[in-house]
Amino acid sequence: MQIRKLLVVGVGLIGGSCALALKRAAAVGEVVGVGRTRTNLDTARSRGVVDRSLTLDSPWTHEAADADVVLLATPVAQFPALFAALAQHLGRDTAMTDAGSTKQDVIAAAREALGARLPSFVPGHPIAGTEHAGAAAAFPSLYENRNVILTPLPETSPQAIARVTAMWKACGARVGTLAPDRHDAVFAAVSHLPHVLAFTLVAELAARPDAAAYFDHAASGFRDFTRIAGSSPEMWRDIALANREALLAEIDGYCDALAAARTLISEGDGEALAEMFAQASDARRAWEARRAPPVPEDK
Amino acid sequence: MQIRKLLVVGVGLIGGSCALALKRAAAVGEVVGVGRTRTNLDTARSRGVVDRSLTLDSPWTHEAADADVVLLATPVAQFPALFAALAQHLGRDTAMTDAGSTKQDVIAAAREALGARLPSFVPGHPIAGTEHAGAAAAFPSLYENRNVILTPLPETSPQAIARVTAMWKACGARVGTLAPDRHDAVFAAVSHLPHVLAFTLVAELAARPDAAAYFDHAASGFRDFTRIAGSSPEMWRDIALANREALLAEIDGYCDALAAARTLISEGDGEALAEMFAQASDARRAWEARRAPPVPEDK
Repeated sequence: MQIRKLLVVGVGLIGGSCALALKRAAAVGEVVGVGRTRTNLDTARSRGVVDRSLTLDSPWTHEAADADVVLLATPVAQFPALFAALAQHLGRDTAMTDAGSTKQDVIAAAREALGARLPSFVPGHPIAGTEHAGAAAAFPSLYENRNVILTPLPETSPQAIARVTAMWKACGARVGTLAPDRHDAVFAAVSHLPHVLAFTLVAELAARPDAAAYFDHAASGFRDFTRIAGSSPEMWRDIALANREALLAEIDGYCDALAAARTLISEGDGEALAEMFAQASDARRAWEARRAPPVPEDK
Repeated sequence: MQIRKLLVVGVGLIGGSCALALKRAAAVGEVVGVGRTRTNLDTARSRGVVDRSLTLDSPWTHEAADADVVLLATPVAQFPALFAALAQHLGRDTAMTDAGSTKQDVIAAAREALGARLPSFVPGHPIAGTEHAGAAAAFPSLYENRNVILTPLPETSPQAIARVTAMWKACGARVGTLAPDRHDAVFAAVSHLPHVLAFTLVAELAARPDAAAYFDHAASGFRDFTRIAGSSPEMWRDIALANREALLAEIDGYCDALAAARTLISEGDGEALAEMFAQASDARRAWEARRAPPVPEDK
């Protein structure tokens, strides 16, 4: 038993799957869930995701005092209020971590609110998810063979890092570290930009008067390319705004690359176009081959 | 037995899977394959895709004289030469069709070369494929529940249309028709543009000095978004250039939409951004739900 008590704030796909994974691994004693709606918490309770639950509008912060780990897994926009609420209530040995997709903004909010308890906080980002949300979507294998990135601060306590690392490993994840700014730059490129591109493509198509004629002929390439456009609008709005600078830089770099591709097509430069396509195809195939061990399909 | 003799020019994923599907349905007598390389034709022969085969640099056009159907399934760039080679050799009752992803350019080449035999040609586009190529990748269920679009001309003979329609239905496909210009506009939007966007994203990432650091953190969203960037560079160069005007119009429209999204992010307009994301997410989910019957996964 690594964690006697886990407090999960935000019992959705991410927080709920962590709880289920720890329970399956017999690595947690009690799981207490905190959330906005009673309906979702009841779902979590009935699915065995949490043992007890409290809504955010009832007194709940006292639950942090004897928790070994507090996991913040709400949308990132709620973190500042959660840090402020928790700052005076974290136990002496409580480690706190989060599952936010951006890190510099989360760290700034933590610095602002946590004061002397800042060393207890281990900024984290589990690289897993599906396009489904809520406690009903949680499943225990979500983190198997997935990466979890921690971006600790100079102040972060080694004990807190060790405890959070052990928690994610018990979920089946691989744990690595990155500097916060590097984290945000990397994920702007490989995750946030693709989401914006996919959302933009589908929204533009859907806004056409004859949209149905287009969608009717879309096939499996379109299906995969746009799968992430089915993701939560609120979550991705928060991510896009939280990582604004890095994302804007990626959008600008991408627009330049797309303009260059447009020029090759416009000028009929088949040789250079095939070369660019081949660079992409080779890199994509090499990446796919390098991914090991194979990642289970999303549910 | 609907087709006594089928001549497949280009025995790859597309042509080979058609042959395998017809054989499985007992809807074809003999399949003769024609292709560039002996190696691929031998693979096709050993997998039972074709019964006989000839390379393009040997005499082969006489095989068209008694074929019920000639299927052109090479890269589109080879079609003008194939039309010229076949014009004098098509049998009186031979129907010819193609599997090109663009139609106006194919039709122009057919008009140029086929002369009095133009009515025998039924322009077609099976909407199916995977990122794999060659006779080794062919499988008989590729067309099950997939769409095949025919874009017949005013001159096209009803008998030829009926025969090609019956062939694709025997493969398990649904057959529909579109005007050629409409076809090219629709597929520029739902297929050719996404391919260019995915190729561009991966090529841009791969060209960075620290590309590995990005690819190492790419996860399942990236995997699906970029799957089509693993496609054949030569095939997609041909498609991009063949459908140049429609594709350029789509790229320009997309760049405008992306610039608008960039403005929302830059100005921190979370409300409008979430609204655009929600339009995309709703449309994507509605499209997914409408796709019926479920399409089998690509191999």
